[in-house]
Amino acid sequence: MTREDGRADDELRSIKITRDWLDHPAGSVLIEFGRTRVLCAASASDGVPRWRKGSGLGWVTAEYAMLPASTNTRSDRESVKGRIGGRTHEISRLIGRSLRAVIDYQALGEKTIQLDCDVLQADGGTRTAAITGAYVALADACAHLGVNKALTDSVAAVSVGIIDGVPRLDLPYVEDVRAETDMNVVMTGSGSFVEVQGTAEGAAFSRAELDALLGLAEKGCADLTRLQLEALGAAR
Amino acid sequence: MTREDGRADDELRSIKITRDWLDHPAGSVLIEFGRTRVLCAASASDGVPRWRKGSGLGWVTAEYAMLPASTNTRSDRESVKGRIGGRTHEISRLIGRSLRAVIDYQALGEKTIQLDCDVLQADGGTRTAAITGAYVALADACAHLGVNKALTDSVAAVSVGIIDGVPRLDLPYVEDVRAETDMNVVMTGSGSFVEVQGTAEGAAFSRAELDALLGLAEKGCADLTRLQLEALGAAR
Amino acid sequence: MTREDGRADDELRSIKITRDWLDHPAGSVLIEFGRTRVLCAASASDGVPRWRKGSGLGWVTAEYAMLPASTNTRSDRESVKGRIGGRTHEISRLIGRSLRAVIDYQALGEKTIQLDCDVLQADGGTRTAAITGAYVALADACAHLGVNKALTDSVAAVSVGIIDGVPRLDLPYVEDVRAETDMNVVMTGSGSFVEVQGTAEGAAFSRAELDALLGLAEKGCADLTRLQLEALGAAR
Amino acid sequence: MTREDGRADDELRSIKITRDWLDHPAGSVLIEFGRTRVLCAASASDGVPRWRKGSGLGWVTAEYAMLPASTNTRSDRESVKGRIGGRTHEISRLIGRSLRAVIDYQALGEKTIQLDCDVLQADGGTRTAAITGAYVALADACAHLGVNKALTDSVAAVSVGIIDGVPRLDLPYVEDVRAETDMNVVMTGSGSFVEVQGTAEGAAFSRAELDALLGLAEKGCADLTRLQLEALGAAR
Amino acid sequence: MTREDGRADDELRSIKITRDWLDHPAGSVLIEFGRTRVLCAASASDGVPRWRKGSGLGWVTAEYAMLPASTNTRSDRESVKGRIGGRTHEISRLIGRSLRAVIDYQALGEKTIQLDCDVLQADGGTRTAAITGAYVALADACAHLGVNKALTDSVAAVSVGIIDGVPRLDLPYVEDVRAETDMNVVMTGSGSFVEVQGTAEGAAFSRAELDALLGLAEKGCADLTRLQLEALGAAR
Amino acid sequence: MTREDGRADDELRSIKITRDWLDHPAGSVLIEFGRTRVLCAASASDGVPRWRKGSGLGWVTAEYAMLPASTNTRSDRESVKGRIGGRTHEISRLIGRSLRAVIDYQALGEKTIQLDCDVLQADGGTRTAAITGAYVALADACAHLGVNKALTDSVAAVSVGIIDGVPRLDLPYVEDVRAETDMNVVMTGSGSFVEVQGTAEGAAFSRAELDALLGLAEKGCADLTRLQLEALGAAR
Repeated sequence: MTREDGRADDELRSIKITRDWLDHPAGSVLIEFGRTRVLCAASASDGVPRWRKGSGLGWVTAEYAMLPASTNTRSDRESVKGRIGGRTHEISRLIGRSLRAVIDYQALGEKTIQLDCDVLQADGGTRTAAITGAYVALADACAHLGVNKALTDSVAAVSVGIIDGVPRLDLPYVEDVRAETDMNVVMTGSGSFVEVQGTAEGAAFSRAELDALLGLAEKGCADLTRLQLEALGAAR
Repeated sequence: MTREDGRADDELRSIKITRDWLDHPAGSVLIEFGRTRVLCAASASDGVPRWRKGSGLGWVTAEYAMLPASTNTRSDRESVKGRIGGRTHEISRLIGRSLRAVIDYQALGEKTIQLDCDVLQADGGTRTAAITGAYVALADACAHLGVNKALTDSVAAVSVGIIDGVPRLDLPYVEDVRAETDMNVVMTGSGSFVEVQGTAEGAAFSRAELDALLGLAEKGCADLTRLQLEALGAAR
Repeated sequence: MTREDGRADDELRSIKITRDWLDHPAGSVLIEFGRTRVLCAASASDGVPRWRKGSGLGWVTAEYAMLPASTNTRSDRESVKGRIGGRTHEISRLIGRSLRAVIDYQALGEKTIQLDCDVLQADGGTRTAAITGAYVALADACAHLGVNKALTDSVAAVSVGIIDGVPRLDLPYVEDVRAETDMNVVMTGSGSFVEVQGTAEGAAFSRAELDALLGLAEKGCADLTRLQLEALGAAR
Repeated sequence: MTREDGRADDELRSIKITRDWLDHPAGSVLIEFGRTRVLCAASASDGVPRWRKGSGLGWVTAEYAMLPASTNTRSDRESVKGRIGGRTHEISRLIGRSLRAVIDYQALGEKTIQLDCDVLQADGGTRTAAITGAYVALADACAHLGVNKALTDSVAAVSVGIIDGVPRLDLPYVEDVRAETDMNVVMTGSGSFVEVQGTAEGAAFSRAELDALLGLAEKGCADLTRLQLEALGAAR
Repeated sequence: MTREDGRADDELRSIKITRDWLDHPAGSVLIEFGRTRVLCAASASDGVPRWRKGSGLGWVTAEYAMLPASTNTRSDRESVKGRIGGRTHEISRLIGRSLRAVIDYQALGEKTIQLDCDVLQADGGTRTAAITGAYVALADACAHLGVNKALTDSVAAVSVGIIDGVPRLDLPYVEDVRAETDMNVVMTGSGSFVEVQGTAEGAAFSRAELDALLGLAEKGCADLTRLQLEALGAAR
Repeated sequence: MTREDGRADDELRSIKITRDWLDHPAGSVLIEFGRTRVLCAASASDGVPRWRKGSGLGWVTAEYAMLPASTNTRSDRESVKGRIGGRTHEISRLIGRSLRAVIDYQALGEKTIQLDCDVLQADGGTRTAAITGAYVALADACAHLGVNKALTDSVAAVSVGIIDGVPRLDLPYVEDVRAETDMNVVMTGSGSFVEVQGTAEGAAFSRAELDALLGLAEKGCADLTRLQLEALGAAR
């Protein structure tokens, strides 16, 4: 059984990272995982939230959202509904934690970097694309602020899942809805785990399946790390 | 006194209309007025709001929003604040009314077209860019639905204002904040007015100034109408 | 074709301005445009919003609302719905901008005047009655504060529209719902424009029609200015 | 010790009941208890809330609110705050229960009467004025609907309190803030109790004090019942 | 006619007061009135609300809530609905006022005690159980803070009602729904009234009925006061 | 280095499962993991959410919340804040997914079981206690409904973490705040994984550490499964 888009089971979709897609924020990246397109902006400001004032430490936080027309069928706007859904909250928190894992708050100083990850088009893997792109925007923002040392490592994320019994890397929407098990893995450039979130969508999974998925994710994150470095290597 | 970007007083910024920027909605357009960039999507669905059911008539409605990082300094997300601000409400309503002015509900039939205008980057004139782009997305959606007759005319919008006593067309942010008077004008392709909204920002304006601004707007809308037709003339 | 209430096309409804209708606020006016009845209160307080502190400048802001039983059929209460609708937001902002156009913030000093315009009974033209009445309440509040110089001019507003092809002044509800074009115009006592908001309800309107409506509005605002002055001329 | 306004301890303030103060609702009353001024509207509509459909029974409900400028110092608008405060909820519920106590739902039939009590000016006793006025508006609405039999009795309400150890009837604001004990009593025209709500503001009260307050309230409600009947006796 | 649970008309249900049910707050009590079970916690913190700062006075406030599964049929969670209902507001305010009636703010000093009364199981009389239990938690919190003098008296509450014409004490749910009149009475340990809230559920009630209910409540509150003292007499 | 409470690194805290703690819901359990105390209720109702009607399939959903006084320092009530926080949303969704993993919707039929997990006292591991207890309440509810077959397996959850480099099972609050890595694992009684959620709190973790944590969790879930079976073995 081959994948609809012809990829190997352990192959990423075509990844495209466009830096400085916006003029205003300190860093901004349009990242594409196949047809999934996420705009990641890193806005820097002086000062930190009240509970952190005077500590000499910086802060990094994130918000994730989907444009209404980004999905197959239009989704209602959360600002119109007047409340943020659980899924949005969950992903915003995941992105924030993931990026904070590679930040040295001391080196950042009392500054806040706000990451905004807005999904322009969704085709599976929006949260992993968001994390992977947000890292590049964050790196550009740190360079802009002259605090490159505030980044202790890089971070990237990928989804893996079991479809018809086969572990696969980087699921598009058509695979995602059919996955028996779905896992998002966030890793540092040096190969350690930052987040592992696995969910049995259909049937519970065995330890062996879990191990296979983790291996696949390690491979995918390593590939993404390389692509991030390439993108950041170019002049701005 | 010349304009910072070298334009003539009655000259539009560089306008760029990219159709089918998204894969999912029936029509979608990325429109650029200089550095202002608005993503306009037209999502079609069967049925109409409850109060219109069984009438045989269609419905068109619009929502406008700005991405947090679209502005000079980051703006808070309205979904996070839990309420939509007055400005957002006002512009969403303006876009909806403007597009409905060229719709034949009977010809549309009991379908709803939802326009989403999301500002990706703001540099003045976001509402007029939104209306101008939304028309093109709407035209594509009507074509997609096979109801070209539902469009009775085209619609475009432009801002005009008085800066240092001189009436100017299509204000970028730097001019907008300095304008003594600011006016947004929505017109049909055939040259009639749909909306006229003039506001004295600094000093009240005379009838003569008002007349000059209206003349400038007529010129600008005619130019935009031509550009819309050109964009729609190309194969999809 | 004559108007249902027997008025000439360029004639205001019977206007009644009752000052000091309330005991507590610095200024208060019950204004009536025919059956439309709006209670306008100007409450003064020391200090200004945070973003203006220490500037030496004052602030004027406005809120508009309708009582549930003010309309033909009862309207739901916005406090119960838990959110303010777009129309309410829009009108509150319009009233605020209109009154601020005649305020000298320096002369006012670091004080805030809050205008509350509550519609007790609605029969068309509630926003224009609100602006016209709010000016009188504001004038009384300025006198009460001993800062008459803070008012640089007076301000009044009126609606105009085209019904069956004929431009008419000051539309009651029955005319408002039939109007092809509806325009609200706010002007200073010295005859300059503060706001022009014209909307094609049915069909787009020509430049000639627009010009006719503006002329009618100039006449109506001049009449209202005279009535405001008469009301303010009387001892309090 | 005499009262500031010269009244006897068991004397009501000057009560004024103006029927048909509004044109639209089925019944409307402006009621004044001294300087306290409440606009009570009774809007009738066909049908009942979902949980009551098909029962053949009607429904009566109430909402209470204060205009921002009705109080000594301006109060924030609950629609702007986005939530209704506990006090408002409490009083709305009290008014609804009080009026429902004299309604024969069977005789009303599947209709809803919505009572809106909006405080235009507050000087103590707004909830009791609201109940007393709402009854008159309700009676007019029932007459308008041709269901006079739906009213099984009349209802009126008054506040009583102990000031400096002396029980007093119908407290204005200056007395209300000084009261050691504050009680609101709702009674039918035939002299039975509908609601008794007594609160020790300063010190707890004895059974003897409670009995004295109840006696005073009986006197006040009897007076109000007479005034309601007089008002309703006049032709509409 | 005897009561379903075999009690005399003037007899309380079985009352159980368990102190220190929680480890974290300064005082905590699980109180049971028959099957009604309310968890009352008194959390102490330094400082007072902003409007009271620098006064040297303390503050006591209360919040009441029901767990979803506490009721016969599951109730929706107010946090999920996004707004607190009128009944919850009303009871929270009642509990706060009741406890504040026995507090000497001066002796408490600039500290806040927050009472949380969460209904784990509801079988009528939850608000009276909450007040009675909250007093015990408050007493423990004051002891914990070393400010026993801040309590000037004790406070207890009980419900009374008329069922089939007979006044009864401490109504469980089955009696509560059948009561023609329902009254909640809050009294101090020394026998004064703090709150009296009587409501005609079915028919209005006479002065004689009101007097009988008050007598019954005096008996019930005296019994509860004794049980509170017994509970507090035990070592902690 | 030994644990503060003297446990072995792979040992659970003292677990206590009390069935039928409430009278009203179909199943209810008070579960204790040491000092952590969660009340789990399973309320059954006929019918399913709208999007599932007519499918013949049932539904299971969950809500998690903490009482204000359950935490070390009092937490604000989410109903009062008017919005549910991200953490609450996240845990409610996790509990729902976990329990749905062992449900046969067909066997359940068009019924909904609502799980409410309310934390009465928090000392770490509240979400894993909630899942473990909710399973027992769900089993009782299924028995009550006569649909034992609707449960295809059992489910239990436990937290694991690395403290000072040592993997430990079932973390209390004092260990939780010091953990470098924190993982929650949900498993079926038959030993498959339902959810794996690992987070690097301090430093990213290696594959070897991840493997050790998974092994520890397998041990803990097996122990909990045994305790669940014992609890359910007793007569109700």
